[in-house]
Amino acid sequence: MISAEEQLSIFKHRADEVLVESELLAKLRRGKPLRVKLGADPTAPDLHLGHSVVLTKMREMQDLGHHIIFLIGDFTGMIGDPTGRNVTRPPLTREQILANAQTYAQQVFKILDREKTEIAFNSTWCMPLGADGMIKLAATYTLARLMERDDFKKRWAENQPISIHELLYPLAQGYDSVALKADIEMGGTDQKFNLMVGRELQKQNNQEQQCLITMPLLEGLDGVEKMSKSKGNFIGFAEPAQEIFGKLMSISDELMWRYYALLSTKSDAEVAALKQNVHPKDSKVGLAHEIVARYHSKFAADKAVADFEARFKQGAMPDEMPELEIHTSGRGIGIAQLTKQAGLAPSTSEANRLIDGGGLRIDGEAVREKGQICAAGTQFVLQAGKRKFVRIRIL
Amino acid sequence: MISAEEQLSIFKHRADEVLVESELLAKLRRGKPLRVKLGADPTAPDLHLGHSVVLTKMREMQDLGHHIIFLIGDFTGMIGDPTGRNVTRPPLTREQILANAQTYAQQVFKILDREKTEIAFNSTWCMPLGADGMIKLAATYTLARLMERDDFKKRWAENQPISIHELLYPLAQGYDSVALKADIEMGGTDQKFNLMVGRELQKQNNQEQQCLITMPLLEGLDGVEKMSKSKGNFIGFAEPAQEIFGKLMSISDELMWRYYALLSTKSDAEVAALKQNVHPKDSKVGLAHEIVARYHSKFAADKAVADFEARFKQGAMPDEMPELEIHTSGRGIGIAQLTKQAGLAPSTSEANRLIDGGGLRIDGEAVREKGQICAAGTQFVLQAGKRKFVRIRIL
Repeated sequence: MISAEEQLSIFKHRADEVLVESELLAKLRRGKPLRVKLGADPTAPDLHLGHSVVLTKMREMQDLGHHIIFLIGDFTGMIGDPTGRNVTRPPLTREQILANAQTYAQQVFKILDREKTEIAFNSTWCMPLGADGMIKLAATYTLARLMERDDFKKRWAENQPISIHELLYPLAQGYDSVALKADIEMGGTDQKFNLMVGRELQKQNNQEQQCLITMPLLEGLDGVEKMSKSKGNFIGFAEPAQEIFGKLMSISDELMWRYYALLSTKSDAEVAALKQNVHPKDSKVGLAHEIVARYHSKFAADKAVADFEARFKQGAMPDEMPELEIHTSGRGIGIAQLTKQAGLAPSTSEANRLIDGGGLRIDGEAVREKGQICAAGTQFVLQAGKRKFVRIRIL
Repeated sequence: MISAEEQLSIFKHRADEVLVESELLAKLRRGKPLRVKLGADPTAPDLHLGHSVVLTKMREMQDLGHHIIFLIGDFTGMIGDPTGRNVTRPPLTREQILANAQTYAQQVFKILDREKTEIAFNSTWCMPLGADGMIKLAATYTLARLMERDDFKKRWAENQPISIHELLYPLAQGYDSVALKADIEMGGTDQKFNLMVGRELQKQNNQEQQCLITMPLLEGLDGVEKMSKSKGNFIGFAEPAQEIFGKLMSISDELMWRYYALLSTKSDAEVAALKQNVHPKDSKVGLAHEIVARYHSKFAADKAVADFEARFKQGAMPDEMPELEIHTSGRGIGIAQLTKQAGLAPSTSEANRLIDGGGLRIDGEAVREKGQICAAGTQFVLQAGKRKFVRIRIL
């Protein structure tokens, strides 16, 4: 095993924050595998590249011999949001949660080592707390401390309702760290408050406190907002190779370098060399190849590159082109209507004539069905004839 | 059974607030016994006259045929205040709670009819809620609503800590009303917020909402602060007849009329007649007799009056005399030291000489032991010789 100092430097690489570094070093110096916790909400089984940032870091830890615990928050998942205000948190049945957990596991093991990962469910220790245990848990924190959380602070200041049960969720999550005797808890930078609760509760329970490692949040395909399923700006682990490849080829050059930093296994030096010596389009192909190979196979990645190059040559797609966002409130839009709105045809009947003649292309591939619906959450290059291109994003 | 309107007028008599009157009238008009809830904390088994105000009102309801439920809050009692900040709320064992409940019952039945009173324990329905049920209960209220409670509002404004579990207690109490299907909940005016939570939770559970009847808070012997055990300004149900009598004789005339209004069974007209025609000292003896007879017996009350009159004649105790509060931080004070501090002797040795000569009296009775400690929470008239009197209160 490599030295504690070297391990720490691997842990810190590309991390947003490591807290508390001296404590983590002391833990590492003991030379025993550390218990590394990552909590996951069982409501959204589709993992995307945003999740992979932290998972990749955990894989590195796993390869160094540390014990990875993938914790499914089924206790809170079974309750959901009883007020019904938060539609993304419907209560889930035991069966749904188990199904989601399985889907989760399948995807997680594209990055983590299946053999060396413990999957845990927090209902195991939260349910036995009982009504009285929940009250005792609630007694461990003051309102003032919880209201330091940005989300709560903001909503309180804006007179937005905060249900009392929402105050209990961070405590239940913190209690998970006590139950698991976690040495390290991982999360996005937006999770720092919740991870700190775990530290605090461990202290109250006379345990050694966990260290926190927060990883930067990955921007979505739009390059602005955090990648998330609800924003439709994501690339899912489970998407077809072609789809992942196409989406990655559609991002801006700036975002590509960000993705290189957070997603690629290439070293900083290798990325710097790419930036210096290689045309951005080729670097983008390289990134897309690496990601597709990870979630599918090298074979699938090679094929995606070949297909793309073929279409690219045929269409002679330019690097720069107009961009257009179409807001459909999630309903999607018909191809003829879209072509008209993108200014590639004066009317929908002209658009249909274009399709009949094989002159309308999506990502270089000819559109065949006039009734085709372009779904919300997709993005692609729409091409009329040889020279008119618009980069489209459907919302 | 008398009419709904007449019953309502009995309910309202001397009550601070009846909420909502029209709903209560509708309940009464159905002609069925109403379920009347009173919640009690199992931590303080010594009931005092302050509690009797609401209990007396409930006895009137009971005599009208309504169903009285005396609810012991053993669920929250078993938990206490886990933060340990509130020393009056230590967690209690099941055995302690049952013992306290029994002591409670013995005292409560000095006023309520034992045969017609249901005693309930809220652990019966709170424990089966489980950890998940407690979270669902917590989801029924928003933080903003709970923070309307004066106590919370004040502490928040003053940056005093509020533990999260304290937010759960009013919800558990409100849930008791749901479990009991209460028609009416009784309490002191300071309980209004908590009783309103019960109304709200019943509504959320599609139940008919309980009405509230709040009774005024009885001032303690000092005539200023609410009567409470912790303030030491109380008369307990379980105190000896002599003690109750003496304490009542020591209150001011103004407070005596307040006690007549809230504690006596005399009608408003009878009390008005006393005020007009009888010397205040004799009215005070009448009140003290009535109260002692209630908690002991008519025989004990007659004896207390006779003893008092004998001492009064012997000592010729005046109506007006200096008053003195001695602060001992609960430790009490030796009689000689007290006599000196009260200005009845120039030194403790002079005080001891006074005792030796039989010239020092407490409530007319000669002090015999020089080492006697006067306990905190007591009050009495200290008399030196025939003409020097000081009304003493030990704190």
